[in-house]
Amino acid sequence: MTTRLEIFALPGIPMVEPGDDLAKLIVDGLTAAGQNLQPGDVLVAAQKIFSKTENCYAALADVTPSVRAQELAVEVDKDPRVVQLILDESTEVVRHRVGVLVVAHRLGFVLANAGIDASNIAGGGVEQVLLLPLDPDKSCAQLRADLREKTGTDISVVMNDSLGRPWRNGTVGVAIGSSGLPALLNLKGKDDLFGRELIVTEVGLGDELSAAAGLVQGQAGEGQPVVIVRGLGLPLTADGSGAGALIRLRDEDMFR
Amino acid sequence: MTTRLEIFALPGIPMVEPGDDLAKLIVDGLTAAGQNLQPGDVLVAAQKIFSKTENCYAALADVTPSVRAQELAVEVDKDPRVVQLILDESTEVVRHRVGVLVVAHRLGFVLANAGIDASNIAGGGVEQVLLLPLDPDKSCAQLRADLREKTGTDISVVMNDSLGRPWRNGTVGVAIGSSGLPALLNLKGKDDLFGRELIVTEVGLGDELSAAAGLVQGQAGEGQPVVIVRGLGLPLTADGSGAGALIRLRDEDMFR
Repeated sequence: MTTRLEIFALPGIPMVEPGDDLAKLIVDGLTAAGQNLQPGDVLVAAQKIFSKTENCYAALADVTPSVRAQELAVEVDKDPRVVQLILDESTEVVRHRVGVLVVAHRLGFVLANAGIDASNIAGGGVEQVLLLPLDPDKSCAQLRADLREKTGTDISVVMNDSLGRPWRNGTVGVAIGSSGLPALLNLKGKDDLFGRELIVTEVGLGDELSAAAGLVQGQAGEGQPVVIVRGLGLPLTADGSGAGALIRLRDEDMFR
Repeated sequence: MTTRLEIFALPGIPMVEPGDDLAKLIVDGLTAAGQNLQPGDVLVAAQKIFSKTENCYAALADVTPSVRAQELAVEVDKDPRVVQLILDESTEVVRHRVGVLVVAHRLGFVLANAGIDASNIAGGGVEQVLLLPLDPDKSCAQLRADLREKTGTDISVVMNDSLGRPWRNGTVGVAIGSSGLPALLNLKGKDDLFGRELIVTEVGLGDELSAAAGLVQGQAGEGQPVVIVRGLGLPLTADGSGAGALIRLRDEDMFR
């Protein structure tokens, strides 16, 4: 049972560039913080630094919007080239109205604008936006393997993003990739305080970790994209349990 | 800027009963943990212990289900008396299907079963369920005032519950009451890393705190309902900013 958690940001993670070695930057950040990785640590890193090091930029000048993208762009009052990129990244438009375009991303997540964002991206004169990584679970597994190789310590890795929700105002940190932990924690069959069997209790562990990390990462100019959560005390699990476990099946979803 | 958070559970919070002095139990728990409240602390406590001390129990034997409750009970396969209680607590049925009844609670929150839950409640032979507190923001403000009186320290208080979400599997901690912090944190106008103005960034701070606390509270028989989050470094705000700030206005909500 967890009774105490520490959540701390790694200092000095600089503006990352395509091709940068994320694991090396993190090890340097740990050193700067006077920390080592410890077994049981969960490293939560913002989607943007994965997308940047993996060069998931798209230049708007290269995009030719389709007729559908142009029509939709008028309806939602967005740049038609951005709308085209959103459609390219998606399998379904779930809702749209002025200023809002909620889609099912090719990765399965339902989110606004396919996670495409123009904030915190140095343009350098070129109009570009940043897409989600090609395979966030794989990115997490790779970072985990790289950190294991550099430090000798096997930890869990979560990639988070700040997303809006139905019914509630404000964004919260949500897991879009993971490796080494059950992103969806199954408590089915565990007894409650009075020994009754809990019929269905699945906890969105990856999302709770992502939200907790969000408290330290900040949303604006703080620039603390990498956070360690220490003390959770979960055993490591195989890579197979990615953040896809958090996605409700299409035909079990009443809100599309 | 927050760089390090500690989240710890208070030991020895026992099974609470109607009329128990929650502030006293918490002060005793702090003593047992060798801790004092510190300015800037956020105390996150589970909805159930508020509901129990405020005696929000309803005995099923006292409930006479209406025709509508009986019909709905057949459709969702639940006890008609529980369905009646859910309807009594709600302003709108948002979705229903077998096993699921999502409503807009009288407090404004959209959630399953109006937050009514039969788990972790000692029945003592009587079939009863536990409702949400009458006014969670007020409960938080009261606990905050009681703790200030007992300890001399003014902190923030959040009441959380574990709720399901559209689109995603698993429950996460969510704020249903708060006092002394901006449950919805407005970053509008703050610059991003490159000095561009962030057009709209509102962070669900109360929900991120609630999810973080959920990592320590546990869902099943752990029984650690009271958690301190230390290190956030936010200035205290007036009581007025309750968890209602997290509720999206009905006509801005695309998912009802």
